[in-house]
Amino acid sequence: MKLEKLVGERFKERPADCVVDSHALMIRGGYMKYVANGIYSSYLPLRRITRKIEQIIREEMDAIDGQEVQFPVVLPASLWQESGRYESVGKELLRFQDRNGSPMVLGMTHEEAAVHLVREYGQSYTRYPFMIYQIQTKFRDEARPRAGLIRVREFTMKDAYSFHTSQEDLEAYYDRCHKAYERIFARAGVPQVISVASDSGMMGGSISHEFMLLTPIGEDSIAICPECGYRANMEAAENIMPHIRDEVSGPLTLVYTPDIHTIEEICDFLKSPRENSCKAVVYQQVPDGKYVVLFLRGDLEVNETKLTGYLGCEIRPAEITPESGLHAGYIGPVDLKGDFTVLYDRSLEGRNNLSCGANREEYHYTGLDMKRDVPEASYHDFAKIREGGVCPCCKKPAITIQRGIEVGNIFQLGTKYTRSMNMTYIDPEGNSQYPIMGCYGIGVGRLAAAVCEASHDEYGPIWPMAIAPWQIHLCAVRADDAQVREYADHLYEELQRLGAEVIYDDRPVRAGVMFSDADLLGVPIRVVVSPRNLKDQVLEVTSRDKTLSEKIPAQDAAARILQIVSGFGKK
Amino acid sequence: MKLEKLVGERFKERPADCVVDSHALMIRGGYMKYVANGIYSSYLPLRRITRKIEQIIREEMDAIDGQEVQFPVVLPASLWQESGRYESVGKELLRFQDRNGSPMVLGMTHEEAAVHLVREYGQSYTRYPFMIYQIQTKFRDEARPRAGLIRVREFTMKDAYSFHTSQEDLEAYYDRCHKAYERIFARAGVPQVISVASDSGMMGGSISHEFMLLTPIGEDSIAICPECGYRANMEAAENIMPHIRDEVSGPLTLVYTPDIHTIEEICDFLKSPRENSCKAVVYQQVPDGKYVVLFLRGDLEVNETKLTGYLGCEIRPAEITPESGLHAGYIGPVDLKGDFTVLYDRSLEGRNNLSCGANREEYHYTGLDMKRDVPEASYHDFAKIREGGVCPCCKKPAITIQRGIEVGNIFQLGTKYTRSMNMTYIDPEGNSQYPIMGCYGIGVGRLAAAVCEASHDEYGPIWPMAIAPWQIHLCAVRADDAQVREYADHLYEELQRLGAEVIYDDRPVRAGVMFSDADLLGVPIRVVVSPRNLKDQVLEVTSRDKTLSEKIPAQDAAARILQIVSGFGKK
Repeated sequence: MKLEKLVGERFKERPADCVVDSHALMIRGGYMKYVANGIYSSYLPLRRITRKIEQIIREEMDAIDGQEVQFPVVLPASLWQESGRYESVGKELLRFQDRNGSPMVLGMTHEEAAVHLVREYGQSYTRYPFMIYQIQTKFRDEARPRAGLIRVREFTMKDAYSFHTSQEDLEAYYDRCHKAYERIFARAGVPQVISVASDSGMMGGSISHEFMLLTPIGEDSIAICPECGYRANMEAAENIMPHIRDEVSGPLTLVYTPDIHTIEEICDFLKSPRENSCKAVVYQQVPDGKYVVLFLRGDLEVNETKLTGYLGCEIRPAEITPESGLHAGYIGPVDLKGDFTVLYDRSLEGRNNLSCGANREEYHYTGLDMKRDVPEASYHDFAKIREGGVCPCCKKPAITIQRGIEVGNIFQLGTKYTRSMNMTYIDPEGNSQYPIMGCYGIGVGRLAAAVCEASHDEYGPIWPMAIAPWQIHLCAVRADDAQVREYADHLYEELQRLGAEVIYDDRPVRAGVMFSDADLLGVPIRVVVSPRNLKDQVLEVTSRDKTLSEKIPAQDAAARILQIVSGFGKK
Repeated sequence: MKLEKLVGERFKERPADCVVDSHALMIRGGYMKYVANGIYSSYLPLRRITRKIEQIIREEMDAIDGQEVQFPVVLPASLWQESGRYESVGKELLRFQDRNGSPMVLGMTHEEAAVHLVREYGQSYTRYPFMIYQIQTKFRDEARPRAGLIRVREFTMKDAYSFHTSQEDLEAYYDRCHKAYERIFARAGVPQVISVASDSGMMGGSISHEFMLLTPIGEDSIAICPECGYRANMEAAENIMPHIRDEVSGPLTLVYTPDIHTIEEICDFLKSPRENSCKAVVYQQVPDGKYVVLFLRGDLEVNETKLTGYLGCEIRPAEITPESGLHAGYIGPVDLKGDFTVLYDRSLEGRNNLSCGANREEYHYTGLDMKRDVPEASYHDFAKIREGGVCPCCKKPAITIQRGIEVGNIFQLGTKYTRSMNMTYIDPEGNSQYPIMGCYGIGVGRLAAAVCEASHDEYGPIWPMAIAPWQIHLCAVRADDAQVREYADHLYEELQRLGAEVIYDDRPVRAGVMFSDADLLGVPIRVVVSPRNLKDQVLEVTSRDKTLSEKIPAQDAAARILQIVSGFGKK
């Protein structure tokens, strides 16, 4: 391919709306173009990258006995009504009507479609286990798309669904898939991707893992214990609290606290650390608007994933009205009256000598003793794990929090979908059973962006050989020089004849323009033909990652270049 | 792949709702499953076929300098408003709103998205010509999906868009693409596909061609002249009428014709052939409901494509109310009063001694002379060409009408989209110009179905090697026989090691079940290992198309089988 004919514009200026590097570089390098919020078109370089990623995924899915299928993008709502998700999933599921008024949805995940496809096939135990997967466009109507391909509304995803007759069989397959994912990320150039325990959220099921590329620009927070190797998405990480209780409980004392509303203000006013306060965080349930008052230690934050998981419904920050019976800024667990769901985080269990709101304007209590003053409380885990927190696994206070991009996930779904959609098989004893499912996703575009985040410099992406848009970037500096032109044209033909993927820049532009375009395209191996080099009968071969810079003889250069490419492919 | 593990059910009975063979065989063979009206999921065999078709298309598009890109499935309505098609296209364009109430559409074709992608890139004449293409899911909300993959609502399509600075350059590229299409259809196993001139319809532009597989189950009618090779979709074929006029015109005479409503009845009543009658066909314009009265010779049919093209808007069959001023069954060109659009087909030009309605209940005229009685009429081509009609090219009365499936199309679009979407470039003289576009489509699933229509028997599809789901179908008859098992397992491994695509049937089932499953999968080469054959140290190799049936030595069979496969691939 001649660079001169490559459709797409490359430019130097970082677009103002790009908050992450991969987004900026993919816009600057002519990889993609904004179409609508969270919706992009891809130019050839990105399409070549995603096709290579898709092929790696396909090979690894086939290697674990996956069968490639294709589900529709547009699905009848009836399938989602069967599973119950038509009602339970929020606005990210795009619902609409076709020309006949039939309700339809855009597939954002395909558990329902998978069960529909194999419901008849899977009627006998002899047909298990099996796995089907597709690589297909999905649409998720995200409220806040951001960061280029990291969080979009339309995306290409590999989604796989496995079906089993026992939990043990699912677990064995889950492990095979886990290993296949490790191979996929390693082959795509990000072997540093780690798996972390995760919350199953709207997918249902129990055990699940996310594959994370650790990077400060990641959207997810991950709790990692360097002592024992425990790793979990913060949403899923259990928060372990040491048991603390003063020997003597002071009396519950009403304190006049005018103009004091926040937990910081009350702690400053009382000259007491935030750990010794009991704060209230108020939500409302989305379905019925009912208030949920959650009490936790003043220095902790609410893990809303745990809270929604406990409540079984979506929540939103509360709008506290005068009629609600709640006194914003003064809410406490003693004498709290009204039709509220009142919850207690385990950080308060057994605590005494705490400050808290008095459910009365401008008054707080000190000397709160949970055992004595709130004897009816039961305690659950609703708080976020923190840097330095106790590891739920080895119990050492060693937790570190890092950020990551989720590039894949795997779920043990259990029988959630087969049960709700009435998919059964007859077991060897003649009994009807629900198959047990697993599901396994990888976002193709997000993986491309993650690789770019992991591997770039200020001048452009540094693509790993296996997914680079081309293998070789051939620059003919001064192609107006007849000797350069003849040599470079011939080398271009020869490399292509030998099966190499070459982007050839023979434009009449300055070397600086050529090299900055090459940096933006991020092709691993660069070959420069120039009058000066040819005079010395050599070519310059460098690598985009700067690990290689050598001159090779101009004679029989193609074979030597291919050797270099193939060596790079193994890195 | 072991057949035993292949997900999908195969069965003998033709499903009742399948009107065409490809549909029935693809359901019976476990290729696909109905999800909703015009929406299917694909199992592995079909996915393998469509992937091979996609790869053939990709290679041929790359060979004519195409650059693969990817447009979104979900597009903002604003792009379609720019081109004007948001308003002009009917309900087949699925319109909906996202979570924020923004109007969106599902891409049914991507001219707008293509212009959007290259609008900045194409600002200088130096960048032309270029072609971009994608292979992507599309959705067209068809009123009447039918015939399995022949007419669906969701489908995978290759759509390409070329951009030029002159009509000559477009035409040269259009020819290159025409040849690439011929190669694609030949490689996919249907070299008999022909191109025919077509109507450009909602795409705009002037010259366009459709690629048709001729088959009685096709949805399109094609006019073919065996004398000169003229070929056109009936929608686009000009209808040439010989000039006929009696020497003497009779008087216009009112005739009482009670209880007579149809053209057949009046011709029988008057004992006059239908060629000597002037019939009225009435429509209403969709936008404003205005009546359109079209007069044409009684034996001809209206070509509604020509009529809508002339009117520039959609039409529907008229609902003739008492208030309309029209007398259904008695409408004629003389003294027709009211706010109607009145049109005359060229079949009436100069005619005399015709019968027609008298615009009065229960009365007709005889002796109508168009020149004398309807002097203000102007004539256009609104009628369908007929079997035996005059060829518009060589003027011989040799037209035959055949039916076909449209498997691809190419359009010269002109500047319709660049003009409406304001895409311009600066020409060498510094003037701003609109680029000239072409567009080029192939439906992947429909092509698979068309190949199946062209190549099947009552037992199943007969896939051409280039797109077959597998190359070799290996049957181990009596796999419970230790020798058969050992030999067949080894051959399976060996063939795969040599790079062949093998589906291996080692199920403990009767040979009849094995062979009928093999027929349904339609794999080109079948290899049968059986105790009897092995006793003679041979294998049976047959081809699905029955052109080959031979015994080959059991020793070193793999190499010989691969030879056969490679010979078949060249057919």
